[in-house]
Amino acid sequence: MNILLTISYDGTNYHGWQRQKDFITVQGKLEEGLTNLFKKYITVRGASRTDSGVHALGQRANFYIDTTIPVKNMPYAINNFLPNDIVVTDAKLVEENFHPQFDTKNKTYRYQIYNNKFPNPMNINYSWFLKNDINIDLIREGSKYILGEHDFSCFCASGSYSTTNIRTVNFIDIKEEDNYINFYINGNGFLYNMVRIIVGTLYYVGINKIEPKKIKEIILSKDRRQAGKTAPACGLTLMEVNY
Amino acid sequence: MNILLTISYDGTNYHGWQRQKDFITVQGKLEEGLTNLFKKYITVRGASRTDSGVHALGQRANFYIDTTIPVKNMPYAINNFLPNDIVVTDAKLVEENFHPQFDTKNKTYRYQIYNNKFPNPMNINYSWFLKNDINIDLIREGSKYILGEHDFSCFCASGSYSTTNIRTVNFIDIKEEDNYINFYINGNGFLYNMVRIIVGTLYYVGINKIEPKKIKEIILSKDRRQAGKTAPACGLTLMEVNY
Repeated sequence: MNILLTISYDGTNYHGWQRQKDFITVQGKLEEGLTNLFKKYITVRGASRTDSGVHALGQRANFYIDTTIPVKNMPYAINNFLPNDIVVTDAKLVEENFHPQFDTKNKTYRYQIYNNKFPNPMNINYSWFLKNDINIDLIREGSKYILGEHDFSCFCASGSYSTTNIRTVNFIDIKEEDNYINFYINGNGFLYNMVRIIVGTLYYVGINKIEPKKIKEIILSKDRRQAGKTAPACGLTLMEVNY
Repeated sequence: MNILLTISYDGTNYHGWQRQKDFITVQGKLEEGLTNLFKKYITVRGASRTDSGVHALGQRANFYIDTTIPVKNMPYAINNFLPNDIVVTDAKLVEENFHPQFDTKNKTYRYQIYNNKFPNPMNINYSWFLKNDINIDLIREGSKYILGEHDFSCFCASGSYSTTNIRTVNFIDIKEEDNYINFYINGNGFLYNMVRIIVGTLYYVGINKIEPKKIKEIILSKDRRQAGKTAPACGLTLMEVNY
């Protein structure tokens, strides 16, 4: 059976998603839990390789198993073998050749900024604290140039090994409430650090350091150095992966 | 000078507010920071003795100091001497005999429930995870009986040393958003564990274990055993202390 899991995690204490020999990672912990539950060595394939400190409320991963445990009970069974900061929230049977990464239609990330005079000690691991005055209207204007299909090399950190840097951004919804600014960004795929560089660049737009319409030129330049800084990992959460 | 501070903290890693000889507490850390900043031994008086694991976004505390540091710069100066999970967000000069606890007019606490099928790993230290179906209308109905001046002995944990158990609850606002149920409770004072027992009791109302109108009888009984359980500390945040 090919089982697709939906997974939430607090990435604070992990060296990212991907299994690594000498570091504690989410994939590593999940595989360890599954291996202990099913008493046979199990590996998973994730939809998205989230970085160190990045969180998820809708990561996906699949694995193959023959078991009598009903699929609908699996989240409870698996969670018994996971630490509190990783939670399986859904399990479903998928076709034998289903691949959680290659079959992805689109994904939504949320990036959270906490904008206030002083940091909030309860969200320091879950948001980017900024005390500057931020103009959301400018950010919304700038974000429009990012929508659609583009070569996003300007928003791609070095260390990326994609064959093409062309991606489609379907929406960027910016929601303000209390002192939070939440960016919901959906696309058919994202380059390395792409969401964090988009947010870092839009932040510069919001503080009048980059003109909104300049975003168009930055994209056309395909030059990472034209864009803004990379927003910190802790503000980023993988919200959903759609198939 | 008598200085009144406003303080936020994540209570997760502290044995509550109050200074203790052998445990790390928020008051202890704050006094240590002030002592290091001003290079003389300083003690503070807090408005509210929050328990272990309880958080604050608006705790208050005062201390006496003669210094050339302008009062408006004090939060920044003090924060340099505090860990990241304690943040001074305001400082102001108050009258020489002002007392942060005895001069309190009223306080607001927030109690946060996270109501979903599975826990959210990012809020486990900041909310009470409950998976039952909860009827908010019943809770709102039950909460009305708590408003006003009553002897609240039924909502008081043993270990309290108040001379009277009469308090006034000014409002209980219940806000639902996404999977959160937030209780904002304001009163002129609270008995030991009072907010947590109120929430634990209203939770029983919300799952049909206690009838809403039964709350009136419970209060009249003055009997702790008639009320519901004590909701866990982690869901509680001291939001503001008003003078």
